[in-house]
Amino acid sequence: MKFCSYCGAAVVKRVPPGDSLPRWVCDQCGIVHYQNPLLVVGSIPVFEEKLLLCRRAIEPRYGYWTLPAGFMENAETAGQAALRETLEEAGARIELGPAFSLVSVPLVNQVHLFYRARLLDLEFKPGEESLEVALFEERDVPWEQIAFRTVGYTLRQWFADRAKGSFGFHSHDISAQ
Amino acid sequence: MKFCSYCGAAVVKRVPPGDSLPRWVCDQCGIVHYQNPLLVVGSIPVFEEKLLLCRRAIEPRYGYWTLPAGFMENAETAGQAALRETLEEAGARIELGPAFSLVSVPLVNQVHLFYRARLLDLEFKPGEESLEVALFEERDVPWEQIAFRTVGYTLRQWFADRAKGSFGFHSHDISAQ
Repeated sequence: MKFCSYCGAAVVKRVPPGDSLPRWVCDQCGIVHYQNPLLVVGSIPVFEEKLLLCRRAIEPRYGYWTLPAGFMENAETAGQAALRETLEEAGARIELGPAFSLVSVPLVNQVHLFYRARLLDLEFKPGEESLEVALFEERDVPWEQIAFRTVGYTLRQWFADRAKGSFGFHSHDISAQ
Repeated sequence: MKFCSYCGAAVVKRVPPGDSLPRWVCDQCGIVHYQNPLLVVGSIPVFEEKLLLCRRAIEPRYGYWTLPAGFMENAETAGQAALRETLEEAGARIELGPAFSLVSVPLVNQVHLFYRARLLDLEFKPGEESLEVALFEERDVPWEQIAFRTVGYTLRQWFADRAKGSFGFHSHDISAQ
């Protein structure tokens, strides 16, 4: 059972007038409670030839490695979200570059967006959601222990673009996580 | 007053443990009700030298011109959202190209994403949310009657890239709508 956040009455799932999909609708106050995908925004911090990764201290994927990223908040830009998440998870100060990858993950109702970034110093340290933070050369990346397919895709594209000497923007869909 | 969608009790705004921002929190069941930006996804449908625009039949910006776009839904990819919105608002069938622009609008907690697209035929017609749908050469674009700054930005970048003969990906922030 679910309840209306506006009036507290029970809500029911039905197709509202003029719509084509079932929604949570409040029969008391009439409000339709839409549910929409969340944006997860992060960065690809680079220092000389190395990439920064964080080892997760939280579920899902506790103990696995990831790029610093998290849910974008209201009242911030996507770029500000990338800076904030990088500081929160890796204690890392970066200069943001261009957007690099956009990956839809419809099974979990998320879109992941990563920016290229330059790590400004080596004073990084794990935040509350990270066990450790470290720099990796390409040959040392723990490919078998990457937390999410969106991150694996982004890392592979980044190394491929670096090898070509030219960075693009990459869109992708992941149909199963 | 707001209510918890899980248990129906009243929620209060306070900073949850381990967080830094005030959230709507339910004191009865403990659930934190996060609020996050919405993704608005659309397309830039092109037929020969002309762009497709829709004149809005709904508020906000009733009567103004826009690219076909709307809120991304759960369980779809960003590309599927662009195809669906283009069909719903303009009755237009398109072949989707690369992502073209990503614009953060923090004042309204939105991120707008537009894809390049090729209009497949001229059988378009206004959907319920459009008064009319038409093709425009660059010199005929109604610049003073464009509904949203995200759309104006995207159109200007698109014409600039076409003039250069090379299309890129463009990120932008709009700090006031």
